[in-house]
Amino acid sequence: MKTLAAGLAGVDGFLALGKHVGIKRQAKDFAVLYSESACQAAAVYTRNQVKGAPLYVTEEHLKDHQARAIAVNSGIANVATGEQGIKNARKTAETVAAELGLRPADVLLASTGVIGPQLPMAKIIAGAKGIKRELTRGGDFAGAIMTTDTVKKEICIEHENFRIAAAAKGSGMISPNMATMLAFIITDADIAAAELSPMLKRSVNKSFNMVSVDMDTSTSDMVIIMANGRAKDVDRESFQQVLDHVCVELAKMIARDGEGATKLIIAEAKGAAGEADARKAARAIVTSNLIKCAVYGNDPNWGRLMMAIGNSGADNLDVDQIKIGINGRPVVEKGRAADGYDEKQLSKTLKDNQKITITVDMGVGTAAATAYGCDMSEDYVKINAEYTT
Amino acid sequence: MKTLAAGLAGVDGFLALGKHVGIKRQAKDFAVLYSESACQAAAVYTRNQVKGAPLYVTEEHLKDHQARAIAVNSGIANVATGEQGIKNARKTAETVAAELGLRPADVLLASTGVIGPQLPMAKIIAGAKGIKRELTRGGDFAGAIMTTDTVKKEICIEHENFRIAAAAKGSGMISPNMATMLAFIITDADIAAAELSPMLKRSVNKSFNMVSVDMDTSTSDMVIIMANGRAKDVDRESFQQVLDHVCVELAKMIARDGEGATKLIIAEAKGAAGEADARKAARAIVTSNLIKCAVYGNDPNWGRLMMAIGNSGADNLDVDQIKIGINGRPVVEKGRAADGYDEKQLSKTLKDNQKITITVDMGVGTAAATAYGCDMSEDYVKINAEYTT
Repeated sequence: MKTLAAGLAGVDGFLALGKHVGIKRQAKDFAVLYSESACQAAAVYTRNQVKGAPLYVTEEHLKDHQARAIAVNSGIANVATGEQGIKNARKTAETVAAELGLRPADVLLASTGVIGPQLPMAKIIAGAKGIKRELTRGGDFAGAIMTTDTVKKEICIEHENFRIAAAAKGSGMISPNMATMLAFIITDADIAAAELSPMLKRSVNKSFNMVSVDMDTSTSDMVIIMANGRAKDVDRESFQQVLDHVCVELAKMIARDGEGATKLIIAEAKGAAGEADARKAARAIVTSNLIKCAVYGNDPNWGRLMMAIGNSGADNLDVDQIKIGINGRPVVEKGRAADGYDEKQLSKTLKDNQKITITVDMGVGTAAATAYGCDMSEDYVKINAEYTT
Repeated sequence: MKTLAAGLAGVDGFLALGKHVGIKRQAKDFAVLYSESACQAAAVYTRNQVKGAPLYVTEEHLKDHQARAIAVNSGIANVATGEQGIKNARKTAETVAAELGLRPADVLLASTGVIGPQLPMAKIIAGAKGIKRELTRGGDFAGAIMTTDTVKKEICIEHENFRIAAAAKGSGMISPNMATMLAFIITDADIAAAELSPMLKRSVNKSFNMVSVDMDTSTSDMVIIMANGRAKDVDRESFQQVLDHVCVELAKMIARDGEGATKLIIAEAKGAAGEADARKAARAIVTSNLIKCAVYGNDPNWGRLMMAIGNSGADNLDVDQIKIGINGRPVVEKGRAADGYDEKQLSKTLKDNQKITITVDMGVGTAAATAYGCDMSEDYVKINAEYTT
């Protein structure tokens, strides 16, 4: 598995652009990803019952499992916008399709930004004029989908005879009212949508759905994959492995870029009676405000870890079997302070590392799961207390 | 229903004390509540699977539904302390029982503080010497059970021919690793434990269990009620009503005293298809970090409210029927910005009030529920990042 620096430009047959059309004051706010040939496509949507208009339209356009382009705007989420919001989403797809010489149903949509306002359609239509000529191999798609993100999130992996590239946005699970996690994955692998779809679900479940609970329940979350089929006879096991890797790496980038975050937290739960229990325990750790604050403060407060695990809803829990380590140092054994537990040393470990790995051995089985999160600083409150006003 | 200023001292037949025995550096850390005659008693415990030793011992001592005293220490939670923790809890009960001339099984226990360390038994035994003489009508029980609380939480209500008084501790759902919510309720009503127990559960469900999700899943949460039976023929409906009121008022005090909190948030969900849905929607609002930060920042960011409701897990949700108001001002109607929505005015309302009531009409039924929480400030992070080290 080889990581290429190319990002989305790494896969042949795809072009992109990122530009300013006037939804935001100055920054890029409109992005298009375009395939030169027909693609098989699949998507995974937020589980939030309040869904953005683009999700409904994308779902509709994916009924034929095919797509040629994805159009994304940042700045306004087009959520809680009623019938007009749906009309605006359709109009965006039609506009982009006309410019690119496609059918509207070949254009998928995503929006991210403030909930409530309608999209400024005149600006979008004007901005879309002539975009076909603006598409390039290295177009700044990843930059134009950002909101409170502080870094671009892109990846490209080459493996055997195929490549997978992707761009994502999201400020960790701790996001402002946009709260949106979006990821767009492209590949040259020749795999039909019927097969791509369950593979995507599997990867999302291991990655984006493990970046804390808040994350996968925002109103606009969406992950789309497009496969143009140029690489034939791709090994399915290898493809799944690379897809997992791409999604996990993007998930980590999102967690690390959490609002106000200073550290990435990786929670590995193992020795669980079942995968559901492992997932619950791992997620309970990265979603606990108290743990997030403790990591920020370099405070090796293991009582909070015990509390979170007990609180996780895991079915099979034997407190006296729980073993916990932080970055390889012993913390808890048999549900109590570990023999080698050294508070000062552990505090130093927390201070010296920007990546904190918390390992929990539940001691009752063999199932495992990993979750991704970040610490919580005063800046998290500042960013989210001063967002719209 | 008449509120008396007496607190726990308001009910005849109960004596109390609060003192320093040396668990904390200086502050009071040991409290006893004592009944001069036999009491019927009932309790509700945390749902966290990691439970403190005092909860196991209290449960054991309540098998006969009777009690004469409650002994509480603050500073150390006696959680994740293994067999030794249970032994220490038993020893505490035996010590207090011997001093007060009771059977150990008549003494109930609670502890709140740091998870992990063992109780300093020598200090507790020395401190308990002669406590019978220290018991008074106005003893500072409520003061000695505090940890990060900034105010004492006490109430006494007189109604018809009976009184209910109570003391509680808890720094809101947003608590440090102790995270503990404790409430001790006494009454002169002549009601047997078999009847008291379901009444207590009903009240707890409406009050403490609605002070956010984190709250009712800490490792040491406990609510105990003791009834000495001096007030005969108490009207059951009236009693339940007063018990509800006492628990709700204490729940509000706890929410308002949340770490770093500047405002009390009351979320009222109505028009729900069922009570479970109403509870989920109300709780989703008070537990959302994004909403808590927005309220702190006087930011009328209603998209976050829609997100939280969509994210609540309520079964029956029709986005286009949702109506939201904040302190009586219209915010959302039919799932979109309300006609009279005025961002500036609403921001001023948020700024001018320390009590923020968010009313959600789900528009699909008649069930209702209320949840209690607080805003989130930078101080929340500060307090929890610097707790043990």
